[in-house]
Amino acid sequence: MKCKKCGERASIKMPQHNMALCGDHFLAWVPEYTQRTIEKYRMFTREEKILVAVSGGKDSLALWDVLHRLGYQADGIYINLGIIDPQNDLAYSAKSKAFCSQFADQNGLQLHIVDIKEKYGETIAEINQRSAHGRQKPCAICGLVKRHIMNQIAHDKGYDVLATGHNLDDEAAALFGNTLNWTVEMLRHQSPLLPAVSGFVRKAKPLCRFYERETAAYALMRGISYVYEECPYAAGARSIQYKKLLNQLEKRSPGTKMNFYVHFLKAQKELFGEEQTAIPREEHCPVCGQPTLSGQACAFCRMTGAVKA
Amino acid sequence: MKCKKCGERASIKMPQHNMALCGDHFLAWVPEYTQRTIEKYRMFTREEKILVAVSGGKDSLALWDVLHRLGYQADGIYINLGIIDPQNDLAYSAKSKAFCSQFADQNGLQLHIVDIKEKYGETIAEINQRSAHGRQKPCAICGLVKRHIMNQIAHDKGYDVLATGHNLDDEAAALFGNTLNWTVEMLRHQSPLLPAVSGFVRKAKPLCRFYERETAAYALMRGISYVYEECPYAAGARSIQYKKLLNQLEKRSPGTKMNFYVHFLKAQKELFGEEQTAIPREEHCPVCGQPTLSGQACAFCRMTGAVKA
Repeated sequence: MKCKKCGERASIKMPQHNMALCGDHFLAWVPEYTQRTIEKYRMFTREEKILVAVSGGKDSLALWDVLHRLGYQADGIYINLGIIDPQNDLAYSAKSKAFCSQFADQNGLQLHIVDIKEKYGETIAEINQRSAHGRQKPCAICGLVKRHIMNQIAHDKGYDVLATGHNLDDEAAALFGNTLNWTVEMLRHQSPLLPAVSGFVRKAKPLCRFYERETAAYALMRGISYVYEECPYAAGARSIQYKKLLNQLEKRSPGTKMNFYVHFLKAQKELFGEEQTAIPREEHCPVCGQPTLSGQACAFCRMTGAVKA
Repeated sequence: MKCKKCGERASIKMPQHNMALCGDHFLAWVPEYTQRTIEKYRMFTREEKILVAVSGGKDSLALWDVLHRLGYQADGIYINLGIIDPQNDLAYSAKSKAFCSQFADQNGLQLHIVDIKEKYGETIAEINQRSAHGRQKPCAICGLVKRHIMNQIAHDKGYDVLATGHNLDDEAAALFGNTLNWTVEMLRHQSPLLPAVSGFVRKAKPLCRFYERETAAYALMRGISYVYEECPYAAGARSIQYKKLLNQLEKRSPGTKMNFYVHFLKAQKELFGEEQTAIPREEHCPVCGQPTLSGQACAFCRMTGAVKA
């Protein structure tokens, strides 16, 4: 298999694009294709301030790298959730944070760090232990905490948009879950771009058209150091099962994952109209000021105990 | 596990209904639940004439049996496609036909038989060999032939509705395929009931809420003789791959298949409105008189060469 651009030996084959590329041309193509995605979904401009949510993994650091190379004003935010993997004796969050800090230092970029143990007195595992969901996986709580803090920082520090490193495998797995249950509201609101609405910052997923293997290849070829290990809480998650199933289909019919996601986005316009928005919330939490449905203290403030503070 | 109705030892467990039943209560429950499905989707009444499409397999013979027991006026139609499985030296269609005839005789029911080799001069394999699709599987052609003939017979002999034995696994697999491609028109028109429209007879799927293992269990427990073998052309079909994937999900989360299908039907109403219809065709084929999109000879007449006759 030869590189489509130069005819040299290809390093990566991308059947969904009917294309193979050598290392150099792949490294050039990833930012180009990201730029096309940013423009296609009108995500943001070079005049706007972007906050990149970085976890220390391949996707989010690749995203930060690409946006920086493309000349965007992109700062980072890392949320230290205090996750430790006892099985591997791994300070997962500490290690993740170190990769984010290293990337920021090497590239002269600004990184905001929020440590939830310092700020709210508990790690994710401790919140999970205390809360009503104590026996469940902490993933739902973790998502809530991250969404809340990211939105707060973006709002307080005047960012125009929050960019996350979701790749096509992530989006396809989420879509698969929403489709298995046919939750119409979730199908209506799953989008590469959610415009700002009533106190929620605009959210964009510039890597949403890359397969996971491509973001991994990009990070590796660029020499970006990132945390290889999955979050210890992710083991057995439904999203991982859905990714495996979609990969089975992809193996048999290359392009299936891409078609599933891209055809959905077209169908979504037909079904719901052009403009995708976040679910509007008219009320605001009296504790933190963020939007809520009820006008009571928001789920985050109830959970962290900030209501009592 | 005990029977929910009588407390005796259960023969079949149906986690999606949170229920297990003994053999006797299962045999009573299948017609009851079919009747509820018929009423829920307003499929047909006992005053109407029903044509049951029978293939000799478990689903269609179970359907005929159930409708007959429920007191419906249900005749059968068997289409002899002339399928032979050379690998197993099996006259597949001949064997299937024998099971249908046997069932009709045992129950004193009327069975229409259409032999396509006799009527059109070619078997499915021969049509496939001759047509432009010669190198492909004949499944698309077979579907076209069956739909055409069933509609013709239903129309000519004055039946009100055509009933097919599609079970939930069939419907969920078709839905899965339509969802992977997000073909909105297919999603709009996949329904347990398609009302009559412009020359197409009404179509109903009264077994659409039974898992395949339940229709198989019913046929076995009732002592209905049916062809066990899959159609030799079915091997490797996408629908079979989708059924396997859905069964993987079902194994991990019992009820997934049922939720996928039933939640879809609810979402369909929300997305497309209450009334489901077949895609209307305003024109009619000048050869056979059946509805077409173009007003030219229909795909069936072009394929069988009836145009020249």
